[in-house]
Amino acid sequence: MALIVMKFGGTSVADMDRIRNVAQHVKREVTAGNKVAVVVSAMAGRTNELIGWVNDATKTPDPKEYDAVVSSGEQVTSGLLALCLQNDGVKARSWHGWQIPLETDDAHSKARITDIKGESLKSSVESGTVAVIAGFQGISPDGRIATLGRGGSDTSAVAIAAALDADLCDIYTDVDGVYTTDPRIVSKAQRLEKVSYEEMLEMASLGAKVLQTRSVELAMTKNVRLAVRSSFDDPASVPAVSLDGNSTIGTLVCNEDEIVEQQVVSGIAYAKDEAKVTLINVADEPGVAAKVFGPLAEANINVDMIVQNVSADGATTDMTFTVPEDDLARAISVLEARKDELRYEELKGATDIVKVSVIGVGMRSHAGVAANMFKELADKGINIQAITTSEIKISILIDAAYQELAVRTLHSLFGLDQETA
Amino acid sequence: MALIVMKFGGTSVADMDRIRNVAQHVKREVTAGNKVAVVVSAMAGRTNELIGWVNDATKTPDPKEYDAVVSSGEQVTSGLLALCLQNDGVKARSWHGWQIPLETDDAHSKARITDIKGESLKSSVESGTVAVIAGFQGISPDGRIATLGRGGSDTSAVAIAAALDADLCDIYTDVDGVYTTDPRIVSKAQRLEKVSYEEMLEMASLGAKVLQTRSVELAMTKNVRLAVRSSFDDPASVPAVSLDGNSTIGTLVCNEDEIVEQQVVSGIAYAKDEAKVTLINVADEPGVAAKVFGPLAEANINVDMIVQNVSADGATTDMTFTVPEDDLARAISVLEARKDELRYEELKGATDIVKVSVIGVGMRSHAGVAANMFKELADKGINIQAITTSEIKISILIDAAYQELAVRTLHSLFGLDQETA
Repeated sequence: MALIVMKFGGTSVADMDRIRNVAQHVKREVTAGNKVAVVVSAMAGRTNELIGWVNDATKTPDPKEYDAVVSSGEQVTSGLLALCLQNDGVKARSWHGWQIPLETDDAHSKARITDIKGESLKSSVESGTVAVIAGFQGISPDGRIATLGRGGSDTSAVAIAAALDADLCDIYTDVDGVYTTDPRIVSKAQRLEKVSYEEMLEMASLGAKVLQTRSVELAMTKNVRLAVRSSFDDPASVPAVSLDGNSTIGTLVCNEDEIVEQQVVSGIAYAKDEAKVTLINVADEPGVAAKVFGPLAEANINVDMIVQNVSADGATTDMTFTVPEDDLARAISVLEARKDELRYEELKGATDIVKVSVIGVGMRSHAGVAANMFKELADKGINIQAITTSEIKISILIDAAYQELAVRTLHSLFGLDQETA
Repeated sequence: MALIVMKFGGTSVADMDRIRNVAQHVKREVTAGNKVAVVVSAMAGRTNELIGWVNDATKTPDPKEYDAVVSSGEQVTSGLLALCLQNDGVKARSWHGWQIPLETDDAHSKARITDIKGESLKSSVESGTVAVIAGFQGISPDGRIATLGRGGSDTSAVAIAAALDADLCDIYTDVDGVYTTDPRIVSKAQRLEKVSYEEMLEMASLGAKVLQTRSVELAMTKNVRLAVRSSFDDPASVPAVSLDGNSTIGTLVCNEDEIVEQQVVSGIAYAKDEAKVTLINVADEPGVAAKVFGPLAEANINVDMIVQNVSADGATTDMTFTVPEDDLARAISVLEARKDELRYEELKGATDIVKVSVIGVGMRSHAGVAANMFKELADKGINIQAITTSEIKISILIDAAYQELAVRTLHSLFGLDQETA
């Protein structure tokens, strides 16, 4: 038998019918002989309702009370799913974060997991009782409920899987796996059977919204095998996880060495929520970059791509960089406040840009990916405004109007198009 | 200063505006120099929503999971009230049952409190931080959440008051105190300034719905002084509890010896939710009562008033008793199943009856109350179908049509009518 963790997000448990559907997915695995721990989110919409009340109570909520209120949504779902399982003849019980206990630091509302004392949880699961765990929450050093922040339930699931030494952590979501790119843009996009943690990390942080970055990082560190699959499949029509912990559906996120035939490029990601800032005719002198980026860092604004042109006159230069779109207004005001010091001629902000990235661990051993990419885009008349690279990805900044053309072009160029039958 | 517990029920915390109003009541007490612990119910309607989901999940819910789901309502209110208090500049924190811990037995969904380890709660309250406690819940011996059943939040409040050795437990509700009778029936009903535990117990169990019987019993046992008052008063217009723990508004429920001028009769209660069962021509022989009431007790049906007529023929008799209206159908079917054994001629059930009770600790030392009562009712043409008495109350069963007349008549007879100005 395999010990598996199954995680279901808010849309998968949105109402009682959906929760009953989840119970069928779980029952299939139990019937096949697997031991199961389930991690659940709040019913879709509940968390927003709770946050709405908190914000109605005060503009500056105490994070400890915020957590005490907001964590209740997951507790409700865990109890209801345990009841649905029992009603289907499956032994089950709910676990709140403090009951495990899943221990966190004291950074309430964005807490990090410090330890999971999983002995009683593990012996309960191994005795054949399905554990239905309220995701997103743990207990802080002073005995208060702490929530894990955005993507918290995915992170709970991976941490629980590590603590239970699970064979597989199945993340059920509203898509049936990880694709070579967004199927809404490229109809020939293919589902990846396997993808490495590092590639998934790049895809997650670059705008493919299937998994939260934080949970993939934790899976990589703890060597937890993740599967991304759909909760909207008919529970009866899909095969159970095999008794050695393998799934034949969805996408497996795993160690590179589990992937035998590695493509050079695994996927094309894009991110529209970036904004571009340009400083025109800023002084080209030592220390100017520190003067620009120091204050932005202090303001907690994350700068991503940076391009500094070669100075034409030897005295001034243009500097371009990207920030999250939500932070653009703050970035502009931080730099305007320092205009006298920076002595730039003009400050421009733009949001009509998109970042497109080509990702693949195979790029480590294959030269020429960048050259091919730039040539093909140039042939299509797409102007590249900035470039950043890592060992396993190349990102470019282009005019937003060219987003679809660029993604489709690169998807074809690197052989990712699905062959039509 | 006084240490007080303030309890607010579901209608008092029904929405954010009502919760802000509660915060004002609490702030008034803190500003006056009192130390405060608050016990809250779920926002009105939330518990029913949660129970609805539980019943949708399964017809036979596991009480442990029922408790895990249903207890979340109080947790939400406690966090939200703590946030409203903080927003008003009052130091506050929420406490869930397991955090105190308020320990219970393992009778989930109707658990009884076994112990309250209140040291950290008490030191927090005494340091000047308002404790906002989720009512209705505790932690069972196996570390699961247990709820206290009907009236649980009142019981939580009294138990917390006892554990904190509070000077007063203020029960805020939607009426402004305990009345000599229902003001909807008798416009001259008066608010009682003080009432003894024993009288309140009779009133609570006889249909005056202000306080749950269980919480009054606990208050009597633990000698906790209770005040019943309205959360709908303008928080700014009512005086704070005095620093020796006395309130000048509402009704104080206390020990008999705190009440100086005790009336003979304190109040008139009535209960409409009773039903009458009559067995006609049942065998008048030893053991027949056991044969009738044994099976009813086994079926967990509570029999209240019992009348057995003197036998006219020496062989058969009529027997009349009351049961809760909700149990009438079951009582009838239990007795029909035993018709051969009981050999009665006819079995009749009726719900067009009402129980009216006259209550007062002064009756212990005053003879003649019953005689006065029966004469006055006879003068009004009201036929008494059954009578039960205790040291401090006389209850009669009458035709439902005479309910208002009987209550008004007795209210006047025992000098309870308010003098008009």
